[in-house]
Amino acid sequence: MLDDLKQQVYRANMTLHRSGLVLLTFGNVSGLDAEAQLVAIKPSGVSYEELQPEQMVVLDLDGVVVEGDLRPSSDTPTHLELYRQFPGIGGITHTHSTYATAWAQARRPLPCYGTTHADYFRGPVPLTNNLTTEALTGDYELETGKAIVAAFEDIDHHQVPGVLVVSHGPFTWGSSPAEAVENAIVLEQVALTATLTESLQPQARSISSQLLDKHFLRKHGKDAYYGQAR
Amino acid sequence: MLDDLKQQVYRANMTLHRSGLVLLTFGNVSGLDAEAQLVAIKPSGVSYEELQPEQMVVLDLDGVVVEGDLRPSSDTPTHLELYRQFPGIGGITHTHSTYATAWAQARRPLPCYGTTHADYFRGPVPLTNNLTTEALTGDYELETGKAIVAAFEDIDHHQVPGVLVVSHGPFTWGSSPAEAVENAIVLEQVALTATLTESLQPQARSISSQLLDKHFLRKHGKDAYYGQAR
Amino acid sequence: MLDDLKQQVYRANMTLHRSGLVLLTFGNVSGLDAEAQLVAIKPSGVSYEELQPEQMVVLDLDGVVVEGDLRPSSDTPTHLELYRQFPGIGGITHTHSTYATAWAQARRPLPCYGTTHADYFRGPVPLTNNLTTEALTGDYELETGKAIVAAFEDIDHHQVPGVLVVSHGPFTWGSSPAEAVENAIVLEQVALTATLTESLQPQARSISSQLLDKHFLRKHGKDAYYGQAR
Amino acid sequence: MLDDLKQQVYRANMTLHRSGLVLLTFGNVSGLDAEAQLVAIKPSGVSYEELQPEQMVVLDLDGVVVEGDLRPSSDTPTHLELYRQFPGIGGITHTHSTYATAWAQARRPLPCYGTTHADYFRGPVPLTNNLTTEALTGDYELETGKAIVAAFEDIDHHQVPGVLVVSHGPFTWGSSPAEAVENAIVLEQVALTATLTESLQPQARSISSQLLDKHFLRKHGKDAYYGQAR
Repeated sequence: MLDDLKQQVYRANMTLHRSGLVLLTFGNVSGLDAEAQLVAIKPSGVSYEELQPEQMVVLDLDGVVVEGDLRPSSDTPTHLELYRQFPGIGGITHTHSTYATAWAQARRPLPCYGTTHADYFRGPVPLTNNLTTEALTGDYELETGKAIVAAFEDIDHHQVPGVLVVSHGPFTWGSSPAEAVENAIVLEQVALTATLTESLQPQARSISSQLLDKHFLRKHGKDAYYGQAR
Repeated sequence: MLDDLKQQVYRANMTLHRSGLVLLTFGNVSGLDAEAQLVAIKPSGVSYEELQPEQMVVLDLDGVVVEGDLRPSSDTPTHLELYRQFPGIGGITHTHSTYATAWAQARRPLPCYGTTHADYFRGPVPLTNNLTTEALTGDYELETGKAIVAAFEDIDHHQVPGVLVVSHGPFTWGSSPAEAVENAIVLEQVALTATLTESLQPQARSISSQLLDKHFLRKHGKDAYYGQAR
Repeated sequence: MLDDLKQQVYRANMTLHRSGLVLLTFGNVSGLDAEAQLVAIKPSGVSYEELQPEQMVVLDLDGVVVEGDLRPSSDTPTHLELYRQFPGIGGITHTHSTYATAWAQARRPLPCYGTTHADYFRGPVPLTNNLTTEALTGDYELETGKAIVAAFEDIDHHQVPGVLVVSHGPFTWGSSPAEAVENAIVLEQVALTATLTESLQPQARSISSQLLDKHFLRKHGKDAYYGQAR
Repeated sequence: MLDDLKQQVYRANMTLHRSGLVLLTFGNVSGLDAEAQLVAIKPSGVSYEELQPEQMVVLDLDGVVVEGDLRPSSDTPTHLELYRQFPGIGGITHTHSTYATAWAQARRPLPCYGTTHADYFRGPVPLTNNLTTEALTGDYELETGKAIVAAFEDIDHHQVPGVLVVSHGPFTWGSSPAEAVENAIVLEQVALTATLTESLQPQARSISSQLLDKHFLRKHGKDAYYGQAR
C-alpha cells in the first residue's frame, strides 16, 4: 500500500540523516499522497542505521494508523495539521538542526540577509508564538501545528516554506518529501550565514525587496530561468 | 570475567571515538555490573585505534584492580565515587568535548534554552565548585568526584544526568555505558546550541518550567510516549 | 570540441564539490580557451553527483552557445563579462561559501589580517556596490559582472583574484579553472580566520604593507621562491 | 641515508594532513637526527596526496642540503634556528590551523583557560614580536626563528612546546616529529576552546597555577601517572 510514497519518505529521511542535520534519532520526514489523502511518516525513535522503507507508518489525516506496526513519530499531529491547513504541500521535515534551532531558542525570526536565503524563502522565516499553558498541557503536538498555521496568517506558505517553532526548532515543507528536506538543508545554511553576518555587522540589514524578488523569482514561478527546463 | 560488561564498555568507548567528541586518547567510558559491584573502564592513554575489549580494566568499588594488565584511566577514582554515591547508574562518560568544555572553562552552568536540552536534562547542567588547595594537591581525582556529588545536593542525578567540572570538562552518566555516551553526545549538542543562542540574543532566557517538564516527561518516566514501547 | 577545456572545467567543478564549499547544486566553475575565445561552464542546476565532462556548455564571449544540450549556469553572463574585461584570466569560480558569503552579507570588504591572506591576495578583497533598480530588473547577471569590474578600477585583478558581490557571495579567478578553485578555497579560509580574528580582537588591524608584500611576492612574480622551480 | 628519520617525518606530515589542520600544501613537519646533527623536512609546495618518504629533504644545521632533489620547505631556516637554539627537541611542526592562526592574527598570546591546555602547555602560549623592517626584508625565515627564540627568553621550551608567530600562525615542537604534530593538534583544540570560552565569558580568567601544575605534572616529568608505564 502506497509503496511509492513510503519509498519516497524513506529516502528523504535517509537524505536528512546523511545531510548532517540530525543527531541520533532526532528529526523526521513525512509525505502526503494527495489523492488517497494519506500520510507516510518515520516511526518514532528508530535509528536511521536500522530504518527500512516498510517501517514507514501510514495514517489518514485524522491520525488513524492505516498501516504499520510501529508508533509514528511523536510529532505526527503537527505534520497532520500542516497537511490539513496548507493546501498543495506534499512533504514535511522537522529537525533540531544547530543554527536554525539557535534562532528558535533566541526567539527571533530569521531575517533575509542575502541571496541564498532569497533563492528559497521570499522573506523572513517566521517564529511561532509561545504556547499557552493550556496548549502545552493539552494536545501539545497538535497545538504546535496550530501555532505554525497562525504564524502564516499573512504569509504565503508556498513562498516561505519553513518556520521556526519557538524554543524548539524548524519545520520545512515542499511539494514532495525530497523538496522538504532540501528546504531544511538550505534553511540551516542560511541560519548559519545569518548568524555570522550579525557577528560581523551587528547592524546588519535585510536585502532590498527588489533583490529578494529577483532571486526568488529566478528560481520559482512562471518566469524562472534557473536549472534545466522540465 | 564480566565479558559482557567489558564488551559493552569497549563498544561505548568506540562509539564515543566515532562521535567526534574526543581528540587523541582523551575521554573514557566505564560501566558497572551492579550485581557483582565491579566496574570496567578504559585503560589510560591507549589509542582508540588499538583498543581491544579484553583491555578493559576491572576494579571493585574501592579501586582494587581485579582483572587487567594495564593501568585504568587516570580518572578512575572520579568514576568510582559517582558509582558509590549515585544509586542506579550503570555507565559514566568523561570527555573534553569542545562546547561543553567551553562552558566549564567559562565557569558557567549550562542553562536550558530549548527543547532538545529538555528532552535529556530536566534543568540546567550544574557546574562544580573550584577545588581547594588541599583537594588539588591531595587525592585529586577522588576530590573531583566528591565535588560532582556536592553539586547534586539539590538535584536528582537521574533527571540531570551530567555535570560540568569547572575549568575541566563534562561527565555524563546513564543506566548503561551506551546511555552515558548518548548523554555526552546530546550535552555537547545543547552546549553548542546554547552558545549560539547567546550570540544571537545576549538576554536569552531559559524555557518555562512547563515546556521543560513537557519535553522531559515525553521521553522519561511512566507517561513517556516517545519511541517504541519496550 | 575543446575536450581538454571541458575536462579541466569538469574536474575543477568536482574539486569544488569535494572541497565542501558548495551545498546542493550551488556554485559553478568556468574556463576560457584563450586562443579559440570560447568558454566552457557548468550547466545550470545539475547535481554534482550526476555531472559529466561532456555536459559542460561551450559558449563564445557574446554568450552564443556553440556546443551543449543543457542550459549554461544562470551566472554565465557574469563570467563572460569578467573574461572580456580581465585580460589574462583562464578560469572563474562562483560559490556561496559560508564565511565569504557572510562578509558579503555584512557588506564589508575582507581586510588582510594575516599572512595566509597575503600569500594569495595582495590587499583587501573588495566588495561590489549595490546594483541600481535598473540593473536589478534589467540584465541582472551581466550587471553583476559590470559591478565586479567597477570594483577593480584601482586594483590589479591579477594581484587580488577575487571579489565579494554584495549580499550575494564570492567570485574568484585565476590562470586556469583549477587555480580559480584554489583561490575560492583560500578565500573561504581567510574569511573564516578573519571572522575569528575580529571576535578575539574587535580592534584588529590589517598587517603592514611590508609583511603583505613579503608574503605575496614569496609566492608570485619573478622573485618567488615558494614551491618547486618549474 | 637517515631512512628512519625520513620515514618518521613523512608519517608525521601525513598525520598532519589527515588531522584537518592544513589546507592545500600549507604546513610542514621536520625531524632532527641528534647524533648526525641532520634535519629532514617536507619539500616546498608538494601536495600531501603525492608526497613520498624519499622526497624528504635532508640538511645540516647550517642549511646545506645533503640529500634530496627538491627544494626544502620555504620555512626551513625557521626550523633550523629552533633546532640550534632549543636543545633536546627532535621535531617541529608549522601550520596555519584556523584557531591558532586567529589568535596570532589577533596578536594575542593564548591564555590557559582549562585543563586540556594545562595537560600540554604549562602556561600561556606566547606571541612573537613584530619583525622590524630590516628583518622582514632581510633573511625573513631566519628572523622568524630568532623572534620565536626571543619569545622564550623567560619560558622553558620543554614546558611550553609551541608559539604563535604574530600575524602568521603557530609552530610547535616535541621530542619527535610525531610529538610535534600531537602538540599542533592540541594547540588548535585549546585555541578553539579558548575562543569559545571568551565568547561565553568576556571576563574569563586563567586557571590557578595549582591546577595548571597538577595537570601538567600528571602527564610530564618523574611523577607523571597518565598513560601506561614505559
